[in-house]
Amino acid sequence: MTDRWNNFIERNLLIQFIDVVLRGCGQVMFQNNPLTGLLFFIAIFIGGYSENLPQTGYACLLATACATLTAYLYKLDKTSLRAGIYGYNGCLVGVGLATFLNNSIYLWIVIIFASILSVIATQSLSIFFKIWKLTPLTAPFVIVSWIILLSSYEFYSIKGIALPTPHNPIQYLNHVNTISAFSSLIPDTLRGLSEVFLFSNMVVGIIFLIGLAVNSISSASYALLGSFLSIIAVIFLQSDINTINIGLYSFSAVLTGIALGSIFNQPSISVTIYTIIGVFLTIFIQAALDIALQPIGIPTLTMPFVLATWFLLNSNKEFTATNIK
Amino acid sequence: MTDRWNNFIERNLLIQFIDVVLRGCGQVMFQNNPLTGLLFFIAIFIGGYSENLPQTGYACLLATACATLTAYLYKLDKTSLRAGIYGYNGCLVGVGLATFLNNSIYLWIVIIFASILSVIATQSLSIFFKIWKLTPLTAPFVIVSWIILLSSYEFYSIKGIALPTPHNPIQYLNHVNTISAFSSLIPDTLRGLSEVFLFSNMVVGIIFLIGLAVNSISSASYALLGSFLSIIAVIFLQSDINTINIGLYSFSAVLTGIALGSIFNQPSISVTIYTIIGVFLTIFIQAALDIALQPIGIPTLTMPFVLATWFLLNSNKEFTATNIK
Amino acid sequence: MTDRWNNFIERNLLIQFIDVVLRGCGQVMFQNNPLTGLLFFIAIFIGGYSENLPQTGYACLLATACATLTAYLYKLDKTSLRAGIYGYNGCLVGVGLATFLNNSIYLWIVIIFASILSVIATQSLSIFFKIWKLTPLTAPFVIVSWIILLSSYEFYSIKGIALPTPHNPIQYLNHVNTISAFSSLIPDTLRGLSEVFLFSNMVVGIIFLIGLAVNSISSASYALLGSFLSIIAVIFLQSDINTINIGLYSFSAVLTGIALGSIFNQPSISVTIYTIIGVFLTIFIQAALDIALQPIGIPTLTMPFVLATWFLLNSNKEFTATNIK
Repeated sequence: MTDRWNNFIERNLLIQFIDVVLRGCGQVMFQNNPLTGLLFFIAIFIGGYSENLPQTGYACLLATACATLTAYLYKLDKTSLRAGIYGYNGCLVGVGLATFLNNSIYLWIVIIFASILSVIATQSLSIFFKIWKLTPLTAPFVIVSWIILLSSYEFYSIKGIALPTPHNPIQYLNHVNTISAFSSLIPDTLRGLSEVFLFSNMVVGIIFLIGLAVNSISSASYALLGSFLSIIAVIFLQSDINTINIGLYSFSAVLTGIALGSIFNQPSISVTIYTIIGVFLTIFIQAALDIALQPIGIPTLTMPFVLATWFLLNSNKEFTATNIK
Repeated sequence: MTDRWNNFIERNLLIQFIDVVLRGCGQVMFQNNPLTGLLFFIAIFIGGYSENLPQTGYACLLATACATLTAYLYKLDKTSLRAGIYGYNGCLVGVGLATFLNNSIYLWIVIIFASILSVIATQSLSIFFKIWKLTPLTAPFVIVSWIILLSSYEFYSIKGIALPTPHNPIQYLNHVNTISAFSSLIPDTLRGLSEVFLFSNMVVGIIFLIGLAVNSISSASYALLGSFLSIIAVIFLQSDINTINIGLYSFSAVLTGIALGSIFNQPSISVTIYTIIGVFLTIFIQAALDIALQPIGIPTLTMPFVLATWFLLNSNKEFTATNIK
Repeated sequence: MTDRWNNFIERNLLIQFIDVVLRGCGQVMFQNNPLTGLLFFIAIFIGGYSENLPQTGYACLLATACATLTAYLYKLDKTSLRAGIYGYNGCLVGVGLATFLNNSIYLWIVIIFASILSVIATQSLSIFFKIWKLTPLTAPFVIVSWIILLSSYEFYSIKGIALPTPHNPIQYLNHVNTISAFSSLIPDTLRGLSEVFLFSNMVVGIIFLIGLAVNSISSASYALLGSFLSIIAVIFLQSDINTINIGLYSFSAVLTGIALGSIFNQPSISVTIYTIIGVFLTIFIQAALDIALQPIGIPTLTMPFVLATWFLLNSNKEFTATNIK
């Protein structure tokens, strides 16, 4: 079956292109599998329509396609290209910009430009981090999106519609009973999964989980573990209950879980301990970055995952040597 | 003529020193030419006197001389030294500090110290970036100036007089008709050039352009292209019309244009496309950094140029391999 | 005597562990000496009890022990481990978190987690900076503490009790007579020393000085020089007199003085000039970082020392080649 598919896509450039676009979407959660990508796209469109933001789905598709096309035109490394490595940051850029900025013709032009930039950023950061055998992860998405989102405060053509209002941090002083959060542990865990693509929707979370499981049971398990542990951690740390419910502490932890647990290392007991430390670190960085960005009114996106994962991967070359992506 | 000049400066250390100081000023826009430097200095003094800030010219001269002297005393790499590579960051530090800080004896002592630091920073960043074959560009100027400008909020001796008031960003909500900006496209383009040295003055811009053309028609062309394109871009993006007129979106774009178009690459069609992408990226980073620095009340200086240029140079080692500075 | 001690600790693992914990504390000021560490711990407990924060001493001890234990369990480089290199960042993390956060069972769990993170950070940054032959200095402490302190704004369990209120910087406009600060030059110099561990206490400063002198007269001298010069500099720059008195401009300068003057270089006249430049740079970075962090309400900790020292060490490989730690 897989052989026939590979054979088929070799002969038809359009089918090959679609295959690479789908893999690009799957690579957002490290899955080099077109079926995973297809399921993710379906979930994104469901999420977009259910939150009355249908443009997110189309923006996601357009940006992944543009990024992939840019990689073809630049004649970038063929193996990486065909695995969707140049598509996943564009994929996230599309969803991110369409979620936070006003929908207009300007937005779509900027999305195309930003998806081209995401490929250049991927190249630039790959070369930068090669020395330490680290990969850019989703840093190209975060950096390009932060630049565009910040600039939206100066450019009326792409003005923000859902950005957090800039303000200085306020000490969180009122005690809340986070025990009640235990009652919604399972839906929160699933919503946390859907927040990887900026949705807060159980059904979307379940489809993402199926998409992961189709390619790797191990990735699906560590994704669940990451989301679940992150919620346990913030209940213990007594954070704002509403933020927990929406899943905003979980999306980076999900990615850290997959990356450390099943992608850059072979699953084992010591790797699982190492992954749990990574998930907890991600939670603290998530909260810290939330606060640090409040004065300038932009979201953290997946930067907590990126920082925690670089930090841990770089500390232990023995683990990562087993399975460099 | 050039031979006789080179011969002459070899025999007279004072003349040689003046030659290196002039080249240092020219290197702000990548021109290793004493005549360019002389024209730039003339323009800076004209700009300073016309804006009632004559100290900027003297500070610029003093800081370039101090930085150059430091490089002589440190016995730094002779080829770089004689090309003015250790002078241009000092040159900008002088203008920058004299523009934003209160004129007093303390200011001049701090300018001398900061110009020494600019040389140390140049060495330190050169060693840091050598691995990726990148150069420090004007990062030493920006870093040293940011440190001094921020510290001016705590040190009465060097208190700020022209720093932006710290405040949180405000979404830019009122639609303005930026079409009117087309009518002043040419003066704005020239004022944009003069903003490289923090002036907003057409005559100064024209002298800078002549200074560039004296050494390199290609650099002059890409400087104009950068300034022109940046204004077209922000008209399209509908930014604040006053900021456009002053030239504040252009100065970094000018430097990106020169650097990517005529210095680090041989001019060609693909290099021009690459440069245009660089100029547009510079515009977005300019706006993003404007916003990100608002809460701490310091200007971006030329950091948008530095970041955009590093980013693009590092993404494509083929382009840059042709002509590393 | 030293031989008998070394022989003794080889045979008894508990004594060896205590020896390494003491050295870890001494390494905060670069002293690989258990007696120095013992004197430092005594000073920390005196400081803690006298400021009604006895938990700082216990937190410091616990965190140093946890970090050391983590290094044993990870089987990290034995020579570094035995010299206390994996303990000093934990040591500072303990004092830092116990000083700024609310004392509760949650705090102690977070301190244990943070001290484990400090070891991972030390490994990760060591690998990152190896290329430039730089060491992490106290950056692991600063980074881990900043993350936890920022996150305390979102986590009620570890809420801040002594963090600066977030606000935008205000230009320092009222002239003050800093000449009066000359009268308290000696006590201020000693209080500056004690601020390395976040105290403001002359007696603590004196014990630190004795602890340094026990192992290295040179380190003690450069520590005094750093603290003294930093106060002279901010009197000249006319900073807030109260901040000077408490010693808040001095603690990073103390560490820069020791590091550049007596650790990474052999003491000499040119090294002393280089160290003085480093101390002055530290003062400007201290003020700049104070201002830059005001909107997000966290202290600079020892980051000014770290940045100034990296900056200078990296600019001159000749100096540092003589004595890499």
